[in-house]
Amino acid sequence: QGILERLDAGEIVIGDGGFVFALEKRGYVKAGPWTPEATVEHPEAVRQLHREFLRAGANVLQTFTFYASEDKLENRGNYVAEKISCHKVNEAACDIAREVANEGDALVAGGVSQTPSYLSCKDKTEVKAAFQKQLEVFMKKNVDFLIAEYFEHVEEAVWAVEVLKESGKPVAATMCIGPEGDMHGVSPGQCAVQLVKAGASIVGVNCHFDPETSVETVRLMKEGLQAAKLKAHLMCQPLAFHTPDCGKQGFIDLPEFPFGLEPRIATRWDIQKYARKAYDLGIRFIGGCCGFEPYHIRAIAEELAPERGFLPEASEKHGNWGDSLSMHTKPWVRARARKEYWENLKPASGRPYCPCMSKPDGWGVTKGAKELMQQKEATTEQQLKELFQKKKF
Amino acid sequence: QGILERLDAGEIVIGDGGFVFALEKRGYVKAGPWTPEATVEHPEAVRQLHREFLRAGANVLQTFTFYASEDKLENRGNYVAEKISCHKVNEAACDIAREVANEGDALVAGGVSQTPSYLSCKDKTEVKAAFQKQLEVFMKKNVDFLIAEYFEHVEEAVWAVEVLKESGKPVAATMCIGPEGDMHGVSPGQCAVQLVKAGASIVGVNCHFDPETSVETVRLMKEGLQAAKLKAHLMCQPLAFHTPDCGKQGFIDLPEFPFGLEPRIATRWDIQKYARKAYDLGIRFIGGCCGFEPYHIRAIAEELAPERGFLPEASEKHGNWGDSLSMHTKPWVRARARKEYWENLKPASGRPYCPCMSKPDGWGVTKGAKELMQQKEATTEQQLKELFQKKKF
Amino acid sequence: QGILERLDAGEIVIGDGGFVFALEKRGYVKAGPWTPEATVEHPEAVRQLHREFLRAGANVLQTFTFYASEDKLENRGNYVAEKISCHKVNEAACDIAREVANEGDALVAGGVSQTPSYLSCKDKTEVKAAFQKQLEVFMKKNVDFLIAEYFEHVEEAVWAVEVLKESGKPVAATMCIGPEGDMHGVSPGQCAVQLVKAGASIVGVNCHFDPETSVETVRLMKEGLQAAKLKAHLMCQPLAFHTPDCGKQGFIDLPEFPFGLEPRIATRWDIQKYARKAYDLGIRFIGGCCGFEPYHIRAIAEELAPERGFLPEASEKHGNWGDSLSMHTKPWVRARARKEYWENLKPASGRPYCPCMSKPDGWGVTKGAKELMQQKEATTEQQLKELFQKKKF
Amino acid sequence: QGILERLDAGEIVIGDGGFVFALEKRGYVKAGPWTPEATVEHPEAVRQLHREFLRAGANVLQTFTFYASEDKLENRGNYVAEKISCHKVNEAACDIAREVANEGDALVAGGVSQTPSYLSCKDKTEVKAAFQKQLEVFMKKNVDFLIAEYFEHVEEAVWAVEVLKESGKPVAATMCIGPEGDMHGVSPGQCAVQLVKAGASIVGVNCHFDPETSVETVRLMKEGLQAAKLKAHLMCQPLAFHTPDCGKQGFIDLPEFPFGLEPRIATRWDIQKYARKAYDLGIRFIGGCCGFEPYHIRAIAEELAPERGFLPEASEKHGNWGDSLSMHTKPWVRARARKEYWENLKPASGRPYCPCMSKPDGWGVTKGAKELMQQKEATTEQQLKELFQKKKF
Repeated sequence: QGILERLDAGEIVIGDGGFVFALEKRGYVKAGPWTPEATVEHPEAVRQLHREFLRAGANVLQTFTFYASEDKLENRGNYVAEKISCHKVNEAACDIAREVANEGDALVAGGVSQTPSYLSCKDKTEVKAAFQKQLEVFMKKNVDFLIAEYFEHVEEAVWAVEVLKESGKPVAATMCIGPEGDMHGVSPGQCAVQLVKAGASIVGVNCHFDPETSVETVRLMKEGLQAAKLKAHLMCQPLAFHTPDCGKQGFIDLPEFPFGLEPRIATRWDIQKYARKAYDLGIRFIGGCCGFEPYHIRAIAEELAPERGFLPEASEKHGNWGDSLSMHTKPWVRARARKEYWENLKPASGRPYCPCMSKPDGWGVTKGAKELMQQKEATTEQQLKELFQKKKF
Repeated sequence: QGILERLDAGEIVIGDGGFVFALEKRGYVKAGPWTPEATVEHPEAVRQLHREFLRAGANVLQTFTFYASEDKLENRGNYVAEKISCHKVNEAACDIAREVANEGDALVAGGVSQTPSYLSCKDKTEVKAAFQKQLEVFMKKNVDFLIAEYFEHVEEAVWAVEVLKESGKPVAATMCIGPEGDMHGVSPGQCAVQLVKAGASIVGVNCHFDPETSVETVRLMKEGLQAAKLKAHLMCQPLAFHTPDCGKQGFIDLPEFPFGLEPRIATRWDIQKYARKAYDLGIRFIGGCCGFEPYHIRAIAEELAPERGFLPEASEKHGNWGDSLSMHTKPWVRARARKEYWENLKPASGRPYCPCMSKPDGWGVTKGAKELMQQKEATTEQQLKELFQKKKF
Repeated sequence: QGILERLDAGEIVIGDGGFVFALEKRGYVKAGPWTPEATVEHPEAVRQLHREFLRAGANVLQTFTFYASEDKLENRGNYVAEKISCHKVNEAACDIAREVANEGDALVAGGVSQTPSYLSCKDKTEVKAAFQKQLEVFMKKNVDFLIAEYFEHVEEAVWAVEVLKESGKPVAATMCIGPEGDMHGVSPGQCAVQLVKAGASIVGVNCHFDPETSVETVRLMKEGLQAAKLKAHLMCQPLAFHTPDCGKQGFIDLPEFPFGLEPRIATRWDIQKYARKAYDLGIRFIGGCCGFEPYHIRAIAEELAPERGFLPEASEKHGNWGDSLSMHTKPWVRARARKEYWENLKPASGRPYCPCMSKPDGWGVTKGAKELMQQKEATTEQQLKELFQKKKF
Repeated sequence: QGILERLDAGEIVIGDGGFVFALEKRGYVKAGPWTPEATVEHPEAVRQLHREFLRAGANVLQTFTFYASEDKLENRGNYVAEKISCHKVNEAACDIAREVANEGDALVAGGVSQTPSYLSCKDKTEVKAAFQKQLEVFMKKNVDFLIAEYFEHVEEAVWAVEVLKESGKPVAATMCIGPEGDMHGVSPGQCAVQLVKAGASIVGVNCHFDPETSVETVRLMKEGLQAAKLKAHLMCQPLAFHTPDCGKQGFIDLPEFPFGLEPRIATRWDIQKYARKAYDLGIRFIGGCCGFEPYHIRAIAEELAPERGFLPEASEKHGNWGDSLSMHTKPWVRARARKEYWENLKPASGRPYCPCMSKPDGWGVTKGAKELMQQKEATTEQQLKELFQKKKF
């Protein structure tokens, strides 16, 4: 059954986790460029991660094609062996995902994400061509559906949806935004409306913010769709990092990004709370993004096991709410084998010299940008960026 | 070249990371029993993790035989398919480790750890038989050397060393203790002395405490050996969790163990500091235990690259001290591409309702136990435990 | 010169600090009732506190008549010796304030605050009668101007201003609200507009929120007045506690209120930042409320000394930005004798088992209340409260 | 009854709080010099503070003669009007303390503290002369007993006790040390032994460390006296600041000293715990030092009211364990009117950008000093200091 049949039937669809962060820690992706040449260089590592997400309960395996547009790969050419073409990276990604999907009951989703072309020139034709090139591979490899994800500007996301929609396959679209909306100031509700009008059957958010903030953003999207009398399935794939202190641009601006985020990593119990909140809001495509490891995906599947009627394979190696501790030799550890314990735990950081919150680096910028706009020196974000860069901040 | 040739020549030997914690998060090990049946059930997952550590710079691949003694596996029989014998688990572990070791320049170390037999009956013959059984596999599979690790009582560790030593292969031995010494109150210095006298060529600590505390414990071992005019190589494989608030029994007693430890996870920069401190103390076998992911092992290899003269393979996907950020589009993220930034970062937890430190659950026990000893009602730890359990704490 | 002459001339007027909290710690006020019978029972203690604020730079001494309406004093009759009449308490407060004001260049302000009558019955005549009774004393004792302060409902504040305005003396009015407005949902801007229309020459906020939040609330009041083309002087007398985690009802709902607020106390440097922000917004009546001790008031006077051209008397015993440390014997303490040090210090709490933020107790209530309103069972806050109490929360 | 009669009879004697810190915040003492010229300049302020401590339950009023030795006053002459002689300051202090003591049941204790003479030259005769000069005033004014307090070196404390002892009046002596002992490395136990042998009837600690650490230090003193078969009464007057992160020299070295200590201020409940711990150890002279405000002293008196059989006067304005909140209008505030609530509260700092712990500035120094000693370049602390200062740290 396809993605829409499942969602239309009221099924819960569980997404997978974050490939670039997980594979960075495993030694196959470089932070900064974040490109997916590992599909060609180390297919066994990509395959293994897919398999772990599948075992954890994922119903969708996304091709590892994040930032795999030709312009991005060229842009980062110094990191990628010249022989590895965009075409090859995308093909290998499809093959690996399909191979693992066949080991279980999962769909393969071909994915595109924001492009350097858009950020540098905004030429609609050129940007669409980049998506078109990836789409050709997805069609040749016959993925089950398509996801346009990680867009900071709804304009580019709409272009991506328009390209993908021509394939005839179902299209999902997620923005990497928070409640304040996209980088041009378009509200979450308006973003959702534009994406659905462009042809997306599933809309939501991914990356950039923690689960709580992301569910809140999807709530605003839902309200926007209701006000516009539009219908779409909802989707959420947040960070597995706590980011209550983020500004509009999300965790990129936190001082800890990307090499000091450890103390912010969500526990499995945090993720169970997220899964419940997402479900209660009516979101039925529930997954994760950066920071989500297999055990986080399993936590979604375990929290929603009562609704779904089954546990994922990897729960063979996990007790419900810690009950595998009931046989521990120390009585005070045995006492932790219960839901209330883990639900109410306030975990310590073990870092007495560190604060709880950080000030995002970008704050000053945002403020400066606002002032520039008030001074009428700039009327678009692009102009603001240029002004800003001239000041060599 | 064997382990002793390398260490005798002054080489730095890098160990691998923590299998049970990493594979628990990947869905292949159950917290609580922590047994390694995955070597038989999912060899591809174990192989992949070995490979990642190898790429990260590990010179030693330990067979994934933690808690693989027959008594432990039986003890946890309800979790392990009955068909999987102790023999099979250990054999598979050796095969996988050797296969991956052959992909690079690594040694295979067969490992034994503390047994339920010791904790329940203390019969020397029976305990030694358990180690003997595992050793037979290691000899058949011809591992390069042997490690007796994760012992809370030096008495049992000595028995393990005695068994392993008979093989004629080099033996390393690490206790899972902190500066307060073993569970019978034997100091780190005395533990080291006993282990060397029993035949260990390499001694140190693993697990239970954070890197800083562990290096301090090895320092005490070193002093003990010096005072006794004994010589041995030093080894350290700590947690990758911050545990400044641990009591004598280490992180087991922290309220966050084992499912809420995320905020305590060390950053790669924390691990670079550890590698330097360990090196400065004269430790030359430097690795990790629970919490150590491949990128943590890579951090050791990168910190000590000037001394070793080369970088590990996985550094192809990592910039020195964050320099891969120098091409980031946002100027304030580019500003993070330097050592001072990451060295001085005090990472926030993003958890404003959580404390920095926890009180270990076992504190009360330890105190109660002390009082009981003073009252002469108990003279051994075992008796103390029984008294304690009668009180139904 | 009177208060309006000073403000009209552009002078900065410095208020005093918080009497009930300071005298509670000195042993003369009871937390809970918070009534000012100390003016009769221990005039020397009240006089001394006035004197300290005067020395610290206060230009206004408020009569210690907080909660000194007859209905409040009776309400709390079990704490107050029956012989102490409302009349006596108010008279003594005026006499003491005038005596100390004559020792320097300060004005005496008679003050009224919210009444139990309003909360219990909302009868305009009765509530106004309570203010009228206090006003008679203020007129007899000829205070210099009048302040209606600590109102949660603008309706009652307007009634108070109407009563006070009949005296012909200048009237200031402050609400104890944050950016979300009063307890009936009237916005700060609308509150300001209503107060000015009722006759207040000076408007602003006091108590309930920290300096930063309070300045933000006054900013909203300023915008409201501008939009309505009304003119008034601005005033701010916030808490000296950090309360970033407050809900709509302010610090009362924090779990730490009132006996565990210590870790939240503002430093003198926090207050200097507040004074600067308040000044920059155009606030010219700058003082404090609960938590403000004499040294906090001095910090306002020192920060604004460049603008005012003089330091307060108590600065004889204080160095600018810590420069009195320049003669310390330890070189690392001497290194603290400079502005950048104290400005950038992130002071530790010394409480590693405590969080940085708390969840206000009232959150659940507010949420429950919202739901009740949506269910149309209640249309006023009073009805909500009743419903709430029936549920015996 | 004199101090020794009371203590010998088993009575609990409650001390007063910290004058220099309290009067600094009130505007009468300058941080840095910390000298007590306020006794002459503003006797009403000193009198009022004595009165508040008396009302709070203090049985001993110490003359405000801290740092009132002639050498200290001259040393800090630039802050003190030249006409105020050492003689005058000490006389006024005695007069004020006696006046207030006569308002209740309190003893007057004349106090001396460490001198600049000792730190600069170590000449026994000269140092003793400074104490002698103050003692003459105490004898003329006929104080009830004498306290030598705030000594970092037991050598100087012994000299002080020898001088005071000649008067024939009872002598108490407290060091400002922690468990690591005095600045020459003399252990707490040895300090206690030397002080008792010199003639002190009461020994203990004051200042520099938090209550918990201070009680622990007195415990070590008690053990030292027991081992030496000496008898003395025990006394404790700690900081009212949390200082778990202090080094050997106490809170002076914390980055927050002295103007950023607010988040560390103890609650009244912290002090009740301290009073109980001190009592349980056998300490019977229980008071406070820097940071102790009248309500902290009241907390000691309230905690020990069951043992003493009465409450202090200021408890008229205080409910036991918060019970004055039982009449609050909001039900969730009423719920705080109970012991378990306040006993278990983990108060938040409201400072999400601040850490829980600080690294003392002096650590580096101490370490450097240790190394210097090992290099034999210095054999005394004085020499270390000189070496250190040459390096212009």
